Order: sequence, then structure tokens, then C-alpha cells
Amino acid sequence: MYTVCVRDHFMIAHSFTGEMFGPAQRLHGATYVVDLEFRREALDENGVVVDIGLATRILREILERLNYRNLDEIDEFAGRNTTTEFMARHIFDRVAARIAAGDLGPDAKAIESMRVTLHESHAAWAAFEASL
Amino acid sequence: MYTVCVRDHFMIAHSFTGEMFGPAQRLHGATYVVDLEFRREALDENGVVVDIGLATRILREILERLNYRNLDEIDEFAGRNTTTEFMARHIFDRVAARIAAGDLGPDAKAIESMRVTLHESHAAWAAFEASL
Amino acid sequence: MYTVCVRDHFMIAHSFTGEMFGPAQRLHGATYVVDLEFRREALDENGVVVDIGLATRILREILERLNYRNLDEIDEFAGRNTTTEFMARHIFDRVAARIAAGDLGPDAKAIESMRVTLHESHAAWAAFEASL
Amino acid sequence: MYTVCVRDHFMIAHSFTGEMFGPAQRLHGATYVVDLEFRREALDENGVVVDIGLATRILREILERLNYRNLDEIDEFAGRNTTTEFMARHIFDRVAARIAAGDLGPDAKAIESMRVTLHESHAAWAAFEASL
Amino acid sequence: MYTVCVRDHFMIAHSFTGEMFGPAQRLHGATYVVDLEFRREALDENGVVVDIGLATRILREILERLNYRNLDEIDEFAGRNTTTEFMARHIFDRVAARIAAGDLGPDAKAIESMRVTLHESHAAWAAFEASL
Amino acid sequence: MYTVCVRDHFMIAHSFTGEMFGPAQRLHGATYVVDLEFRREALDENGVVVDIGLATRILREILERLNYRNLDEIDEFAGRNTTTEFMARHIFDRVAARIAAGDLGPDAKAIESMRVTLHESHAAWAAFEASL
Repeated sequence: MYTVCVRDHFMIAHSFTGEMFGPAQRLHGATYVVDLEFRREALDENGVVVDIGLATRILREILERLNYRNLDEIDEFAGRNTTTEFMARHIFDRVAARIAAGDLGPDAKAIESMRVTLHESHAAWAAFEASL
Repeated sequence: MYTVCVRDHFMIAHSFTGEMFGPAQRLHGATYVVDLEFRREALDENGVVVDIGLATRILREILERLNYRNLDEIDEFAGRNTTTEFMARHIFDRVAARIAAGDLGPDAKAIESMRVTLHESHAAWAAFEASL
Repeated sequence: MYTVCVRDHFMIAHSFTGEMFGPAQRLHGATYVVDLEFRREALDENGVVVDIGLATRILREILERLNYRNLDEIDEFAGRNTTTEFMARHIFDRVAARIAAGDLGPDAKAIESMRVTLHESHAAWAAFEASL
Repeated sequence: MYTVCVRDHFMIAHSFTGEMFGPAQRLHGATYVVDLEFRREALDENGVVVDIGLATRILREILERLNYRNLDEIDEFAGRNTTTEFMARHIFDRVAARIAAGDLGPDAKAIESMRVTLHESHAAWAAFEASL
Repeated sequence: MYTVCVRDHFMIAHSFTGEMFGPAQRLHGATYVVDLEFRREALDENGVVVDIGLATRILREILERLNYRNLDEIDEFAGRNTTTEFMARHIFDRVAARIAAGDLGPDAKAIESMRVTLHESHAAWAAFEASL
Repeated sequence: MYTVCVRDHFMIAHSFTGEMFGPAQRLHGATYVVDLEFRREALDENGVVVDIGLATRILREILERLNYRNLDEIDEFAGRNTTTEFMARHIFDRVAARIAAGDLGPDAKAIESMRVTLHESHAAWAAFEASL
């Protein structure tokens, strides 16, 4: 199995609902450093898993829609805790939709699975991975 | 599959038995930077894999029992080489026992697997992972 | 010259005023990973620059007052852009005050200078350093 | 499952064929920081996954044959794009051959799978993993 | 003293002249991860050392001229060893010229010194720093 | 000013004397990841600060004498706390002696200053720097 990973980041504000979050129930924020991994069994005819330039651009576009935002004000996230885990899944779904739409090229349909990791500090991260 | 990871560290002395260890048969030591990963299929009602505050505290408690110790003098490890691999498994078992005892909350029983990684330098690490 | 550095982090929300900030004028947030360095010419009688346990605790206390906060709502910062540079200076001043108050021990008065670095992502950081 | 990983690096020149590579079609180069992971279900009698000293030496020997080379001039790679993915597989195959030849010791035959990761910058990496 | 740093990277081929370089006399290559630091005594009216967006763009433009190139073929470097140290200085001079040309804004003239660090692997780096 | 840095590591056991060390008074240990920096105003005729191959070898030799040792048993350190700060200075002095002895080549006498940093975990380090 081959994997290719590209890294980028975004910076947001948000708050959490639920006693277990303690002081994180207040409005605060985070930098998320994002690792986006693509996996497939065989390389394409160019010898790559995915067009890394295209992958980097798609990831950037998806993060731009979140960057410098207060996630509490985004309708799509209403009633949900935008935890690191949840945001990893959100970005996964966005990339998957772009692959399905052909935006990573026709060959990207051979990608079998992806993993999205969000590093929230030097001491904690969360990830979501699934087959496509 | 969702994953959440928290990081901490501990510092110990130990020695190894066996010719293959060469100079590491002498009493020496290590800093182990520990990454503890929890995995489950679905998030809980709060939108998390595990209460990260609780997970951090449990990991700290487990590492405190090892921190600043000479592992050669701990009865539980008698006759065993406390290699990085071995210590990763030891910490895994300790965390698993705490989950079984309910110390990470009732919802932590939904955790399906864990992985414990011990970084022993900038150039080497070992890990143990298993289902719960 | 000897230096000792300890690392911790905090997570905040804020917004900036000024056209140059572009989308960062919106309410957003950041994780700041903080490196706090102490410098002095000679070690103390214990062979250290500073009591690292005490330094770690003092840094934690200072960051706790900022952690999980919206910096826009803190009176002390009214009318100021809480940029990474600015926050590095703010933390520097807080630590300096604690040293002056004797909270790092009498011997900490021998510390000649400090440097505070705030990493805001994998690709950017800011620092403030000065003599004491 | 236990994993042990050792890290090393090599520096090469190469060029790519194919429009998708854009300016990377020109002769350029890369530093590849290599993480080589070995996996097995149970530790050997010494309590290790593999003799880490031996593993480090074997990896060094394999990388020496590539280090400071122009990959475009190596016959074995003729007609292939020596992408990060491709080179990860190449190194995997070399290590697998050394294990099969007994060069990591008789006990290394118990290694069930390996993963080779090549970091090409602070923002991208590729990997190949497979059973042995 | 305040410092702000931004990070980017470029990938090149080159060879060295001189016996001390051993196998690095052959055509090979490197990824250079670049840290560009700006230093000044006081923050500007916006509370920053430099417009970080502008700084990032200028650095990108300078690196684009080197990226995916064989440095042996660049006239400007003829007869020189394009070592990590040398390239750090080259990039320093380019950024300094852009500041002098006003490309980082009129306020950037207050920048007192800069430092450029090039990481060539996980185990080595070189830097050049000077007053402006 | 130019700087070149090489990285290596060593693993030791030791204990500290003095109440301020708390549990670190017990025999424990550490991995020290070492960054050794050389600084000079101008590059030599080859375009380098120092022969990096030679520097790496000298550092390795110095660390080998400490690696896998119990520092409490080394006569030279008797009556001293082998803190991270202290060990940074010790390694600095060893490298300086090797430069003075001509072991880094005649040109290494142009090195003006050095800095030795010992990382003891992901969250703490100490350094010693001085002119030569």
C-alpha cells in the first residue's frame, strides 16, 4: 500500500457545549496543522499516488473556507461540537467530495482510502480515516 | 475510524541482558516521549473519542510510577529486558486496565483499540497496538 | 552563556484591527506553543540555570490566565492587536514580574535575560527577548 | 502488534517525465529523511522486534548506494519516475531482500510487515508498506 | 528585541568542488526547509514586526527562482560551491534587496537584522545572519 | 555571521544531589539529542563553516565516551550534578579542545564561537554557548 501526505494549516475560533469541556466551553480558538494522506495499492502511470500539486491546491481551498473563522457561526456546524475529531471528519468528507467530483483528476478515483490528521498542539492530535 | 492522541514523557535508568545489546548492557537511561492513541468507530454524544483531559491525567499517573526510576529495581520487570517495545506494551496494558476499571468514564468502553508509541531519540521509536 | 528552555501551550480566540490583516480581522483563534528560555552566565550551586520544576509551574500559571479565552474581551489588551509578537512580550513581562517577586526563588535574580517564543503553526513563530 | 522504527536520510538529484510534474520535469533534487518500520506480533527472546543496531546498519548500507547520486543515471531506474512513492518502495524491497538473505539475523524472519516513509520536506511525505 | 519567522522550502540539484566534499562532489541534490527571521526593537503601529503575508509571498518568490533547478547551471553561482551556508547568505541578500526596494512596505525599513536558516536534513542545518 | 549545526544523541543514567531535584535525586536517566553549532564571520575557501563530515565524526567520538554510561560513576564528574546545562558545557569544552588540537583541520581555528544544545524531552532543553 502506498501513501502520500501533504500538510497545511488553518486558524479558527470556537466554543464547546458540555460540562466535560470545562474552560473550553468558553469561546477560544486553535491552530490546526492538517496532514492529508491518500492511499492506494498501485501507483499510476506517472509513478505517483496522486497529483501532489493538485492535492495541495484542493486542500488549501477547503481550508480557506474555514480559515480565520468563528466555527460557532457556521450554519453547517450548528448544534455540533467542532472538536478536533469532528473537524478531521469534516475535512475528510470535503476532500472525498472533491475526488468524487473529479477535481483531483480521473485517476484519483483509484484512491482507496484517506486519513486526515489535525494537530492542535505539540502534545495532542486527532484523526479520521476511512475507505472511499 | 477516529483517533485521538495525547503526548507526555518520562525519564528512566535501566540495563539490558544479552550480547546483542553491546554497550547497552551497561546501566544507562532514556527519555521516552510517549504518544497514546485511542481509536473508535463513532464519536460519543459530545463529539469526542475520549475525554482528553481525563486521558492526559491517566497517562500522567501511569508515567509517574515509572518516572525517575531505575527499571532494573522494579520487581514487576525482573528477568525482563525493559526495551522500548516492552515498555510500550507495559503502558498499553496499564491504560487498558484503567479503561476496564471505568477510570476514563463509562463511555470509554467504546474505545476499540489503542496504540502506544515511545520515542527514544530523534532517530528511533517503538510502538505497541492492539484491540481492547 | 547558559540557557534553559521549557515548553507549554495555550489556545485563544482573537481578532485584529487594520487592513493589512485581511481575513484575520475576523474573529478567529490560535494555538500558541510557548518556549520560555532563561539565560545566565554561570550555573548556581546546584548546577542549574533555574529550578525547572518551578519555571514550568510559573509558566503554566501565566498561561492558564490566557488559556481558552477570547483575548478581545480582556481589558488589559483593549485597543491593542494581540499579535503573536505582542503576546510573546506579554508573557515575557509576566515571567519577569514573577522573577522580580521572588517566585522562582532568590537565586533566579541571577537570570540575565529571557526569550519567549510563540509558535503559531508549523510554518510561523514570533519571539521577544530582552535583558532583565 | 509491535513496531520498531529507525531514521536516516539521503540526498539525490533526479528529474521527472510527464506534464503533470510541471517544473519538476527539470533536473532538481531532494533530501529524503527515511523512517523504516518493522512489525511483528510477538517480541523475540531478547524482548525486541529486531536488532536495532543491525537494522540501522543495513538501512545505512542501502541508502549509501543512493546517497549523493543522480537517480537519472542509475540503470535500474531507467524509464521510471523516481518519485518519493517509488523510492519508498525501492528501499522497502532492498530491506526485504536483506531480511530474506538472513542479514538481520535468523530471528528477523519473524518480521511480518514493514513500512518505509520518505519525508521530502516539512510539508510532504510518501510511504510504502506491505507484508513480508 | 522582537523576531518573526516564516517557513518555506525548495528542492535543488548541485555538485561541489573540493576533495573535502568526498561523494558530494557528484551531482546530487537537497530539500532546503527555509526559516526566514526578521528582527526589530519595537513593533509597528499594527503591533507586528513585518506584514507576515507579504513576507511569506516575497520569500516564496525568491525561492521559486531556485526551486526545481540545477544550481550548477545558474550563472550567478559559477565557480562557487552552493553549500547550505552559501545559499543561506544568497537568500538573505535577496530578501535584503527586496526590503531596500520597499517591497515589504515602507515600515519594513525599521527591520534591524535578519537570519536565514536552511535545514538540509533532520540532522543538519546552516544559517546566515546580519544587520541590515 | 554563519552557523552550521549537526545533530546526534546519547543515552545515560545519573542522579542529582539537592532537595530541589525532588524525585530526580533517584537514579534515573535521559536521552540527550545534541545540536552542535559552529559560528564564523566568513566562509572558508570551500564555501563552508567547517568540514561537516569531520564535525559529525568528532561529535560522535565525544558522545561515544558518554553513551550508555552511568554518569555517577565517571570520576571527572564526581561531586557535580550532571544536569543538562552542565553536560552541554562539558561537550562544548570537549569540542573546543579538539579544535585547539587541530582535529577539525587547520581552518577550523577560524571558528569564533560555538553553541551546544541538549534536548532532554519534547518539552525542555538546555544550552551552553561561548566564544573560542
